[in-house]
Amino acid sequence: MAQYTFKVTMSCSGCSNAVNRALNRIEGVKKVDISLENQEVVVETDLPREQILEAIKKTGKTVQE
Amino acid sequence: MAQYTFKVTMSCSGCSNAVNRALNRIEGVKKVDISLENQEVVVETDLPREQILEAIKKTGKTVQE
Repeated sequence: MAQYTFKVTMSCSGCSNAVNRALNRIEGVKKVDISLENQEVVVETDLPREQILEAIKKTGKTVQE
Repeated sequence: MAQYTFKVTMSCSGCSNAVNRALNRIEGVKKVDISLENQEVVVETDLPREQILEAIKKTGKTVQE
């Protein structure tokens, strides 16, 4: 199981909940931890990092690659 | 050109900007108007409504179908 960390711009709990929901919907995502304070998204999965990155981009949030 | 209206739960301008960004990235989307106050997203496009709905869902926001 891999663990990937992304820096994502999130302004409120509505933002972080949306990212959480979008990622948890993906089959193969085991765990999502989001820190609004640290602007950080941590994902545990066997999927490739690129696929998770693409899903975060589709939320419309700004993410550091 | 069709115009579709969706009710989307958005809490802050970070939320509405994210939806705006996600939709404007789609080729074939002509115009996106978002009202945070009215929780409303209006899209002008020749694409099918279903495709726009799917893109909104991928933002992780709650949308009325």
